[in-house]
Amino acid sequence: MLIECVPNVSEGRRPEAVAAMAETIRAIPGVRLLDHSSDASHNRSVFTFVGDAPAIESAVLALFARAISEIDLRTHKGEHPRLGAVDVVPFIPIEGATMADCVALAKKVGAEVGSRFGVPVYLYEDASSNPLRKNLEDIRRGEFEGLAEKMASPEWTPDFGPASPHPSAGASVIGARMPLIAYNINLATDRLDVAKKIAAAIRQSSGGFRYVKAAGFTLQDRGIVQVSMNLTNYEKTPIYRVFETVKREAERYGVSILESEIVGLVPAAALNAAAEFYLQIGGFKAEQVLENRLRVGK
Amino acid sequence: MLIECVPNVSEGRRPEAVAAMAETIRAIPGVRLLDHSSDASHNRSVFTFVGDAPAIESAVLALFARAISEIDLRTHKGEHPRLGAVDVVPFIPIEGATMADCVALAKKVGAEVGSRFGVPVYLYEDASSNPLRKNLEDIRRGEFEGLAEKMASPEWTPDFGPASPHPSAGASVIGARMPLIAYNINLATDRLDVAKKIAAAIRQSSGGFRYVKAAGFTLQDRGIVQVSMNLTNYEKTPIYRVFETVKREAERYGVSILESEIVGLVPAAALNAAAEFYLQIGGFKAEQVLENRLRVGK
Repeated sequence: MLIECVPNVSEGRRPEAVAAMAETIRAIPGVRLLDHSSDASHNRSVFTFVGDAPAIESAVLALFARAISEIDLRTHKGEHPRLGAVDVVPFIPIEGATMADCVALAKKVGAEVGSRFGVPVYLYEDASSNPLRKNLEDIRRGEFEGLAEKMASPEWTPDFGPASPHPSAGASVIGARMPLIAYNINLATDRLDVAKKIAAAIRQSSGGFRYVKAAGFTLQDRGIVQVSMNLTNYEKTPIYRVFETVKREAERYGVSILESEIVGLVPAAALNAAAEFYLQIGGFKAEQVLENRLRVGK
Repeated sequence: MLIECVPNVSEGRRPEAVAAMAETIRAIPGVRLLDHSSDASHNRSVFTFVGDAPAIESAVLALFARAISEIDLRTHKGEHPRLGAVDVVPFIPIEGATMADCVALAKKVGAEVGSRFGVPVYLYEDASSNPLRKNLEDIRRGEFEGLAEKMASPEWTPDFGPASPHPSAGASVIGARMPLIAYNINLATDRLDVAKKIAAAIRQSSGGFRYVKAAGFTLQDRGIVQVSMNLTNYEKTPIYRVFETVKREAERYGVSILESEIVGLVPAAALNAAAEFYLQIGGFKAEQVLENRLRVGK
């Protein structure tokens, strides 16, 4: 069973502190740290690691202990909104693990973080059963600075831990979600209005696909525009459907697609679904992928 | 390093003999037997297993010993052409192995089969440096019954082993090739002439793509026709190019594609190439597939 965990931590300017947190994760048996990166202007770091549920739980708890000793939100500045020292902890099903496994893990870890560290925990996305507290942006609105006031409202009683912020570590948002795909489509035009109109057409917030976030940008150095997207559930809103819709909307302005790009990692199933769609492959099964057969029994 | 080996053995009617050969392969440490199947009318069995080069070598030599003791070509009958007890042994690069690794393995195993068992060995496909002896059908022409006469010609001196057939085990063809993809496209018509014309347009033998073998068939039970293909090098003749060509040729007859199907296994890279093509993904790297990252270091 493989679960991915991608915690976001509110420290991106002191490399030695980030390295210590990475080492804390790496030291847990059964955990593989795949990547970590820091953004100084955001003053924030992201760690990516995988393992089974017990190993992931140990790594997250160890990371909390380290981050709480390293980070004080009262003096933290950065461009990115944040609520806590360990700001967000998503668990993501990868292989042999279901969304239900990740939800159960989020609740177990959340309860432990609340009781062991005295940090209030909000569940989010699939781990939250409260429709008003599924969306990360809603939970984080007001940030650390507005947290004490927000938590005074009964609507914002946390799922675990004390009913008021941890003095230096704020609160944490822990949950379960599908793998996120960062996907951009570059258009063969410099017309920013076209990119913005297409972004508006496809994103959920303005009437588009449910699992698409999108914005239009200019790529100054290339003299073209880009529709930049996050696809938050590639099973329910597949890449190919988004691509075909962008292509069709662009045609209406006489614009064609120059290329698309996947930023970072993509699950094999998301690419296989595109191959199945375009090649009209009927009755395809994941077990037909040779590499998947090789991993059976490992 | 993972190499796949898919030996074809001239026994498909005695289940106990086939099971004994499967057990011989399975018993080799480091080898995983993924599949085996037998065809009684062909009187032939195919084994599919993977491992690193030394493990694969041990398994093939053990299979030869077992097959030679079980099979006598002098009394063997079957519909499928065959030259030897262990008729064909292809080595296929899968992961962390190159075609050159597979060619080297074919030569090493070939030399050992020749000297240890007294079975003449012909190298084929990428392992053969003789352009007249690359194609399996050319090497096998005349079959076991015509082998002694064929080998008397200097053109057919084997690459390894004695210059005349093994009395009961004939000769073996050993080589290296790319994974083969069995790929069919069903057309929304019952016109067999259309399927046959399209098959002729795309297969190498009549002027089409170099790594395509194709034929047109009627699927009686469904009242439609099929272009049935073997794609013998998906890197050089990719699936999407074949699909798009079939689609375009069918349009010329007013026919559309109903669906396609992949029979058996397909390498992930072949599907990823289709996703890259249709989604116009620029700068894509295999390391961006999440599952590939998980396997690094395993």
